[in-house]
Amino acid sequence: MAHYDLIVLGSGPAGQKAAIQAAKLRKRVAIIEKEWIGGASVNTATLPSKTLKDAIYYFHGAKLRAFTNLSESLKESFTLRDLMARKAHVIKNELAIITNQLQRNDVEIVRGTGSFIDAHTIRVIKNELAIITNQLQRNDVEIVRGTGSFIDAHTIRVLKEPGSDEQLSADFIVIATGSRPRHEPIIAFNNTTIFDSDSILDAETIPKTMAVLGGGVIGCEYATMFSAFGVKVTLIDRRNELLRFVDQEVIQALIYQMRINGVTVKLNEEPQDVKTDERGLVVTRLKSNKTVVTDMLLFSMGRSPNVEALNLHTVGIATDQTGLIKVNEFYQTDIPHIYAAGDVIGFPGLSSTSMEQGRRAACHAFKVELSKLPTMMPYGIYTIPEISTVGKSEEELSKANVPYEVGRAYYKEIARGQIFGDLDGLMKLIFHRDTLELLGVHIIGEGATELIHIGQAVLTYGGKVDFFVHNVFNYPTLAECYRTAALDGINRLGIT
Amino acid sequence: MAHYDLIVLGSGPAGQKAAIQAAKLRKRVAIIEKEWIGGASVNTATLPSKTLKDAIYYFHGAKLRAFTNLSESLKESFTLRDLMARKAHVIKNELAIITNQLQRNDVEIVRGTGSFIDAHTIRVIKNELAIITNQLQRNDVEIVRGTGSFIDAHTIRVLKEPGSDEQLSADFIVIATGSRPRHEPIIAFNNTTIFDSDSILDAETIPKTMAVLGGGVIGCEYATMFSAFGVKVTLIDRRNELLRFVDQEVIQALIYQMRINGVTVKLNEEPQDVKTDERGLVVTRLKSNKTVVTDMLLFSMGRSPNVEALNLHTVGIATDQTGLIKVNEFYQTDIPHIYAAGDVIGFPGLSSTSMEQGRRAACHAFKVELSKLPTMMPYGIYTIPEISTVGKSEEELSKANVPYEVGRAYYKEIARGQIFGDLDGLMKLIFHRDTLELLGVHIIGEGATELIHIGQAVLTYGGKVDFFVHNVFNYPTLAECYRTAALDGINRLGIT
Repeated sequence: MAHYDLIVLGSGPAGQKAAIQAAKLRKRVAIIEKEWIGGASVNTATLPSKTLKDAIYYFHGAKLRAFTNLSESLKESFTLRDLMARKAHVIKNELAIITNQLQRNDVEIVRGTGSFIDAHTIRVIKNELAIITNQLQRNDVEIVRGTGSFIDAHTIRVLKEPGSDEQLSADFIVIATGSRPRHEPIIAFNNTTIFDSDSILDAETIPKTMAVLGGGVIGCEYATMFSAFGVKVTLIDRRNELLRFVDQEVIQALIYQMRINGVTVKLNEEPQDVKTDERGLVVTRLKSNKTVVTDMLLFSMGRSPNVEALNLHTVGIATDQTGLIKVNEFYQTDIPHIYAAGDVIGFPGLSSTSMEQGRRAACHAFKVELSKLPTMMPYGIYTIPEISTVGKSEEELSKANVPYEVGRAYYKEIARGQIFGDLDGLMKLIFHRDTLELLGVHIIGEGATELIHIGQAVLTYGGKVDFFVHNVFNYPTLAECYRTAALDGINRLGIT
Repeated sequence: MAHYDLIVLGSGPAGQKAAIQAAKLRKRVAIIEKEWIGGASVNTATLPSKTLKDAIYYFHGAKLRAFTNLSESLKESFTLRDLMARKAHVIKNELAIITNQLQRNDVEIVRGTGSFIDAHTIRVIKNELAIITNQLQRNDVEIVRGTGSFIDAHTIRVLKEPGSDEQLSADFIVIATGSRPRHEPIIAFNNTTIFDSDSILDAETIPKTMAVLGGGVIGCEYATMFSAFGVKVTLIDRRNELLRFVDQEVIQALIYQMRINGVTVKLNEEPQDVKTDERGLVVTRLKSNKTVVTDMLLFSMGRSPNVEALNLHTVGIATDQTGLIKVNEFYQTDIPHIYAAGDVIGFPGLSSTSMEQGRRAACHAFKVELSKLPTMMPYGIYTIPEISTVGKSEEELSKANVPYEVGRAYYKEIARGQIFGDLDGLMKLIFHRDTLELLGVHIIGEGATELIHIGQAVLTYGGKVDFFVHNVFNYPTLAECYRTAALDGINRLGIT
C-alpha cells in the first residue's frame, strides 16, 4: 500500500492548492479525483460561467457603449454555438494548465472515488464504479459491496468479496470534495426546460423567458447573464433581501439595475410546485398562490456538499444536517490530522477562498507559519454589473457601534466610466470617522472584482482613507474612483 | 482690479487640481483659460485618444476572443462616424463634469489668454483677439499692441492705446498652460494627409497605410490604435529603443506584439523630408535614404510648451531652449510665489502626474503639509496592449547595484487571461533578493493601467513580494497575476 505525506480528496481549487503547497514543501502528495481535474470550479461552475459572462458582457457592453449599428450586428452574429465553443476552449486550456502544474510539482493524480477505511487509509474506487456509486449515493441509496443474487422477489443475497480497489495511506488528509447543485423533490429536472446550475451550461437553446429559483450568488449571476442575453428573467427568492453578506446599498443598486434591465425580482416568495404543462412550458406555482410561466427554469437554491462517498462515520467526522463538515480555524476536522476545505465546509464557497483554505490547511499540517498580516477576504460576484467587496459593511459597523463615514464615487463622475459607458458603477469607501482608517470597500460596476484589490492592499496595511488622496492614479482609470470617493468621504467630515 | 489668493493659468489637469485644492482651502481662486476648459487632456489629447482606443480595442478584442463571425460583422459595422460621435459624446460629458466641479468649488473661470504684467499681475486678453494672438505667437511673430495703419507698402504705423483688457492680481500664481504638438518646418501639415496628434483626431477618412514619425508615448499609442483598426502602420523613431523610461523587457514585448500585428517598426531612422506626390500620397524620405510611401502621416515628435503668450521675461522666469519652465521640487519657478506644473515643465507630461503637480503646487503655496508616504508615480501608456509601470526598472536597479530578483506571470497562465483571450499579457514583479521588498511592477496587457495600482499600494507601504502569496484574490481576475508572479519570483530564489 502506497504511503504519502498528504492525500487530498478532490482536485478543485481547495484540493489543488493544498496539494501544491505540500508538494512545494517537498512532501509526497497524492490527489484523488473522481471525475474531472479542476473540480466544479473549472468544469461546471466558476470558469465556464465566467467565460460566458465575459462574452455576454462584451455583447451587452456594446449596448452600453451606444454604438447602435454595432449592437444590432452583434445580436445577429453572436450565437449560442459560438458561446459554447468559446467555453469549451477556455476550459480545455485551463485544464491543461492545472494538470501541468500538478505534474510539474510531482503531485500524483489518482483517478477514482476516495473513501475512508480508517483515519489514515483511503480506498479508491475505480472510475466506472465510482460514477454509478455517486449517482446512487446522491439519492441516499445505501451501498453494500459484493455480488448480489436473488433469494426471492424482494430479497438479495450479497456475497462479500475482498475489495480489489486501490488503498492509499497518509499522515495527513485534506477533504476537498466540493459540492454539487442541490436538488429538491418538487423539481423534476429534465435538462431541456428545467435545469440546475451545472446542466444549464449545456442548454441547447436560449429561451425567451426564464425563471430563476434562488437568488444567491449563482442565481443572481445567471439571472443577470441571461437578462443581458435578451432573456426575460424572473428571479425568485424566499428571503426579503438578496446576498445578505454584502453591503446592502450595493445590493439595492444591483436589484435596481436588474429591474432596469428587465429582470423581474420577486422577494419573499417560495415555490410550491413546478410542473411542465401540455405546451412544454414550465409552470412555477408560488406559496403565495402566484404563478410564473416560463420557457425554462433554473433551480439555484443552494449546493450540497459531496460527502456521501467518504464514509465519514467510519472515522468519526461530524457533519451538520446539510452534510457540511465542521472545521476549526485551521481547517481541522474532529480528527486533527484530517482537514477539510472548500465547498465541503460551506460559506463562502468561492474558488478564491477555497484555494486559500486548502493552502492554509497544508501549511498547518506541515507547520509552515503563515503571514502575520490580517487576511482580508474579498468577495467577487460575477453578476452584470459585477460586485466585489472587502472589509466591513455599513451593517456590520452599525451593529458594532463603530463611528464611520462613507465616501462614494460613481463611475459617471470619472473619465474612464464615461469612456466605458458604465455610468451606474458605484464605489463606497467606509472609514473610521476619527482615525480615518479604511474599514471596507464595496463596488458594483464593470471591473469591480479587479478594482477591489487596491483597497484590499490598503486595508491589509491598516492604511487610512487619505492614502487615496495622496496617491497618483493613471488617467483615465476606474482606479481614480478611489480618490474621488476618498475626497467625497473626507469632505463629509466637515474638515478642510 | 480683482485680487485673488491664487490665479491659475490654464484649466487642464494641472490647473484644475491646483485651483480646486486652493478652493478647498477656502482661498479665492481664478482660473484663466484661453480655449477649452479641460485643456488638451480633455479636448485634443488624452481623453479623446483613450476613448478611441477603448472603442478600437473593443473591436480588436473581438478578434482576440476568436469569435470569427463576430469579428467580421464588427468590421462592417464599426464606422469612423460612430467613433467620432462616441468621442464627442464622452468629451461633452467630461467637460460638463469639470466645469461643474470648478463652479461648485467657487473657482472663477476667466476666458482669455493670460500674460504677465508683473510678478503679481496678469493681463487677460479677451477671447477673439486671443485666438489670433496664439496663432501669431506660435510662429514667433512679435506682437505690438495698438491700431495699425499704412504709411507705405512695407511700413505700418501703430497707434498705441490704453489696454481695455482685464487685469487680475494674486498672491500666488500657477502656470499650467500646457503644450501643443511640436511642428517642424520640413513637415507641411495639411490636415488631410499630414497630421499632428491634435488634428489626427478629426481625420475624416481611415487610410490604408500610415507613417508615424516619432515613437514616444503618443506615437506608440496611435501606431497601435490605427494598426488595430486595420491600417498598415510604419512607426519611425530616431533612437534605437522606444520609451526609454519603461522597463525594456516590457518595451521589447510591445515591439514584438506591434510587429505581430503588422506594424513596421523602424528604429535609428530620421526623416530627411516629407513631400506629397502627384497622386496625393505622402512620401517620407529618411536620412538613411530609405523612402516610405503612405496614404497618411502622423508627426508625433514631441510637444511644445505653451509659454510664448506669458511674457515670462517680464517677471524673470527662465525657460530652457525648448521653452520648458524650470521648477524646484515644490514646483516653484525662479520666482518663489509663481509655480508651474504639467506639460509646461516637461517630462512625464501625463494627465495623472500633472494633476498631482498642480495639487502639490497649491498645497505648498498655502502651507498644507503633504503625506509622508513616498509618492510612487505610476506611468500609464494606452497602447494596444496597454503598458503600466511603477517603481524601479531592471535597468535602474542594475545601475545602482541593487541585488534583485524578478517574478513573472503571463496572462495565459491564469484563468482570466484565458477568458479575456489576452494570452500575451505579462506582469513583472521586481523585488530585493535579500529583504524581499517589492521594488517595481511592470505590466503589458489588457487592464495594465488599472492593475498597476495594486502593486503601487504595496510599494507605497514598503511591502514585500510575499504579500501577494498570502493575499486572497478574486477568481478569476487578472489581479491573480500578482500571486503567480510572486510565486515565480520566490521560487527563483531557491528557497523552499
